[in-house]
Amino acid sequence: MGVAVPPSRPFLKSFKSGLKETFFPDDPFRQFKNQPPSRKILLGLQYFVPIFEWAPRYTFEFFKADLISGITIASLAVPQGISYANLANLPPIIGLYSSFVPPLIYAMLGTSRDLAVGTVAVASLLIASMLGKEVNPKENAELYFQLAITATFFAGVFQAALGLLRLGFIVELLSHATIVGFMGGAATVVCLQQLKGILGLVRFTHAADLVSVMRSVFTQTHQSKKKPEFFWVSAMAPLTSVILGSLLVYLTHAEKHGVEVIGHLKKGLNPLTISDLAFGSPYLMTTIKTGVITGIVALAEGIAVGRSFAMFKNYQTDGNKEMIAMGMMNMVGSCTSCYVTTGPFSRSAVNFNAGCKTAVSNIVMAMAVMMTLLFLTPLFHYTPLAVLSSIIIVAMLGLIDYEAAIHLWKLDKFDFVVCMSAFLGVVFASVEIGLIIAVSISLLRVLLFVARPRTFVLGNIPNSAIYRSINQYPVANNVPGVLILQIDAPIYFASASYLRERILRWIYEEEDRLKLSGETSLQYVILDMSCVGSIDTSGISMLEEVKKIVDTRGLKLVLVNPRSEVMKKLDMSKFIENIGQEWIYLTVQEAVARCNFMLQTCKSNPEAEHNSKDNNV
Amino acid sequence: MGVAVPPSRPFLKSFKSGLKETFFPDDPFRQFKNQPPSRKILLGLQYFVPIFEWAPRYTFEFFKADLISGITIASLAVPQGISYANLANLPPIIGLYSSFVPPLIYAMLGTSRDLAVGTVAVASLLIASMLGKEVNPKENAELYFQLAITATFFAGVFQAALGLLRLGFIVELLSHATIVGFMGGAATVVCLQQLKGILGLVRFTHAADLVSVMRSVFTQTHQSKKKPEFFWVSAMAPLTSVILGSLLVYLTHAEKHGVEVIGHLKKGLNPLTISDLAFGSPYLMTTIKTGVITGIVALAEGIAVGRSFAMFKNYQTDGNKEMIAMGMMNMVGSCTSCYVTTGPFSRSAVNFNAGCKTAVSNIVMAMAVMMTLLFLTPLFHYTPLAVLSSIIIVAMLGLIDYEAAIHLWKLDKFDFVVCMSAFLGVVFASVEIGLIIAVSISLLRVLLFVARPRTFVLGNIPNSAIYRSINQYPVANNVPGVLILQIDAPIYFASASYLRERILRWIYEEEDRLKLSGETSLQYVILDMSCVGSIDTSGISMLEEVKKIVDTRGLKLVLVNPRSEVMKKLDMSKFIENIGQEWIYLTVQEAVARCNFMLQTCKSNPEAEHNSKDNNV
Repeated sequence: MGVAVPPSRPFLKSFKSGLKETFFPDDPFRQFKNQPPSRKILLGLQYFVPIFEWAPRYTFEFFKADLISGITIASLAVPQGISYANLANLPPIIGLYSSFVPPLIYAMLGTSRDLAVGTVAVASLLIASMLGKEVNPKENAELYFQLAITATFFAGVFQAALGLLRLGFIVELLSHATIVGFMGGAATVVCLQQLKGILGLVRFTHAADLVSVMRSVFTQTHQSKKKPEFFWVSAMAPLTSVILGSLLVYLTHAEKHGVEVIGHLKKGLNPLTISDLAFGSPYLMTTIKTGVITGIVALAEGIAVGRSFAMFKNYQTDGNKEMIAMGMMNMVGSCTSCYVTTGPFSRSAVNFNAGCKTAVSNIVMAMAVMMTLLFLTPLFHYTPLAVLSSIIIVAMLGLIDYEAAIHLWKLDKFDFVVCMSAFLGVVFASVEIGLIIAVSISLLRVLLFVARPRTFVLGNIPNSAIYRSINQYPVANNVPGVLILQIDAPIYFASASYLRERILRWIYEEEDRLKLSGETSLQYVILDMSCVGSIDTSGISMLEEVKKIVDTRGLKLVLVNPRSEVMKKLDMSKFIENIGQEWIYLTVQEAVARCNFMLQTCKSNPEAEHNSKDNNV
Repeated sequence: MGVAVPPSRPFLKSFKSGLKETFFPDDPFRQFKNQPPSRKILLGLQYFVPIFEWAPRYTFEFFKADLISGITIASLAVPQGISYANLANLPPIIGLYSSFVPPLIYAMLGTSRDLAVGTVAVASLLIASMLGKEVNPKENAELYFQLAITATFFAGVFQAALGLLRLGFIVELLSHATIVGFMGGAATVVCLQQLKGILGLVRFTHAADLVSVMRSVFTQTHQSKKKPEFFWVSAMAPLTSVILGSLLVYLTHAEKHGVEVIGHLKKGLNPLTISDLAFGSPYLMTTIKTGVITGIVALAEGIAVGRSFAMFKNYQTDGNKEMIAMGMMNMVGSCTSCYVTTGPFSRSAVNFNAGCKTAVSNIVMAMAVMMTLLFLTPLFHYTPLAVLSSIIIVAMLGLIDYEAAIHLWKLDKFDFVVCMSAFLGVVFASVEIGLIIAVSISLLRVLLFVARPRTFVLGNIPNSAIYRSINQYPVANNVPGVLILQIDAPIYFASASYLRERILRWIYEEEDRLKLSGETSLQYVILDMSCVGSIDTSGISMLEEVKKIVDTRGLKLVLVNPRSEVMKKLDMSKFIENIGQEWIYLTVQEAVARCNFMLQTCKSNPEAEHNSKDNNV
């Protein structure tokens, strides 16, 4: 059976289906097909606001579980919120505000049942380092705060836009390796920064705090990682540290002897900050840049975390809906005194371990934080900053995932290089530079794969019609007089020259080898195109060049199994006419059989060879 | 036969062979193998200075041919050199200098027998537009000249470095489509600029010049393209125009009535300009940038032209040696009053048609230009600038290759978009922006191929053991209870999420289809990995996720024909252990046979299904 030229499809139709595959690989409209209009409206509402989809099935059993996990994560959210706000050089109260509004938005729009929303260290660090370059947060706290929420607004706009435009693949550019290296680097930077805070304290010999730091370091990093049943230790440690630390300061009046404390926190819920969004500020470009980078990093963490826990429980999150949910929560957040939030791994893991069932645990957490804001803020007056530093350091140590780096080294050296370059870039240059280097190296690998596609010599696996790479299957045998090459990637402008050189080199080497060993001289070159997924005009020119050169050496070029797209283009460019439709086969086996037949005929009847060459060349 | 895990190779060894494939695909050291040291030195010398390789075989017959073609291209080189120097806003004499030294260098180092070296319009335009932004060539001619030769020096350094470091693939980033669009755009810009010159003349009603312009336009664009035997028309037209134009001006004293002429040209050979290289100038960055862009564009044209003519005559040019040769000729040129040169298409085509045999025709041309420099420069005193403009416009019209653009549209819409964006970018923005846009779009296509790999459902071609895409071969039949998917590209971080979604969607759709039609429910999902050339850690995680989801739906995942690299990584990550070595097959046929056997056994004995599932899941 030969390879037929597929019928040409109208350009617009194939363009449309290409667009659909690129942007809607999950086919979100599948469920809308063949439904009455009223049902379509309901489905649409449920599609965009998933809480309408699952709320009707919500039970009291679920609520009990969500209540417990919600309160558990609130006990983590309060001290972490204050600590991370401190890391972002924002007033501590902003951290609490950020654990109130965004979780409510996410509960309505998100598709993960385990994600616990809140501020994260890396985003806080990004805000501090990128905005801190422009405005000093101590000298000009008001402007700095305005820029931070403006950046949050842009982060939200960018995130929601990615989701709406279905450009989620931009987030995929941050590979797992990049994120491991990036997080590790960011954590190292934060730890080194925070050590100042703790060391500053050591000078005043306040041993109790150091003890609590050490204990929480110990409990968190060791117990929580190894044994999930001790999750409550890591869940409660930060709050315990805060309570113990504050109590000690209060009892010993250490704040009067130089131990820095949080000080007065205003009671009350999030003030509106729409009018504080600084769109007219001269730092607009900086806030946009900060927003975009923070937004994409926050998305990458949140989506990866949501997906991981969904896999444990065997349900699916929807990447595009997640982006819209996170975008919305940051846009609304920026109008209500919140800075960038996402789904931090630590808090979500606690949520998961505490047995949460749905996003209602986020609502419970938000309510608990609301209570704190309304009534409990005075309690944090005496909380020493050193405790906050220690909470941050502990969270950060968990992010330095050297085991993952070792795993990458073992499995894939290139991914390890990506990981290390992200790490070193962040530590020695800056967060943006680290990210850019890692993404560039990752992309370089993709380009290199296409620019330097591998070619394999195929051989016949004994007693079968199967042809496989001689390299991978040493048992495979060469076919006398025939060279079978498989090309492993699309033939594009970037690889055309290389492939021409490489194919010719295979031919020369095979001819040399045959000359030395005195075997049948080379007569046929078979190109197995099974894996050539696509070809451009440079690729077609390359094939034409190879054909010419092969012809002048008295060899015959044979093609095997070109894909429909390739077949179409070869036909349009008259290459098929040039090579002869009868020299294109569906399988290597058939091509080899034909070549062998010709070789046999020519041996017994040299005249036939001459004729056949005349007819086909 | 199963798929064995290939033995692990030492990291350094595979790294070395990877590097070799990337940078030495043509295996330049092949001929040095097993040779005595003295022979190695000779071969090395011949390798780096190819004239030593072919000079011993040079015959008088060759010389006769080279003499004729050399004189022919000299008659083109003189007026073109003056015209292009004019285009680059450099003194006309520089154009003549540039046709004297660089051809001599190329004759020694180059590997093409047909390339005629000289200045080109696009490089001249680039110099004029990029340096002209910084320094006004009229007000500050001295500095402008220094910057131009400094840029030439950097172009040479960059070109030679690309060759020495074997980074030729950077040149390959300029695909054929990019070059067609870019050249067309540049030609359009130049024509519009030069029209000023001609229109300026029309006001003084000097009809004779217009006639000669029109005639040469007519003869060149029509005759030379269609009939190679009229090549001498296009070869002689510029010189004829210059002679006729100068004669007319001289006889009518038109220069006194406002017709601009070249004026005085200094007699003598190229003055040394080493001390004029402006490395300390404040415009150093601009000259480097100009040098790099001009260098890469000049290389792209020169290498493509050399390769095209080599193909006609069935010999090979060596891309890396060509880069070194062109780099050297520009470095030496920059020290001897020359600006950027390469192998222009028009001049090389004339050289080829005039029957040149070797690069000696370049030496002949250089000698002829030397004679002109020594004795004939006064003759150009009365040459009107309008004639130069017309020579440029005629050369440019040949570069607007709308037929190639139509061809691209028919063959490959994406290449057409690349071509048009280069064209529009050059015309409406600038040459650099046009190039950057076109290269970015080209790279985007490569990334998109990897980020959105196609997946195909395979079916059995009746009465055979062959499985092919049902889409391409409608005759292929589904196997009841089995879904066979082929993945068409490497599985990288950029495609992992997409592939997960897409594979799951195939499964859901197949289940829906089977439910509606009441056929055997889905039991097995076979992934044909034949075309998955590479996988990274994100890809492995993706497969693990798919395995988990498939398991929870009560289906069994089967792999077919993973390549050695993929097999190694799957083994190291324990995925093979997880899926079971016995569920990895060499061919789709074998995998389907096993699935069918299991399905049959289960039908006749439901207990067996249960057991087999327990054993294998």
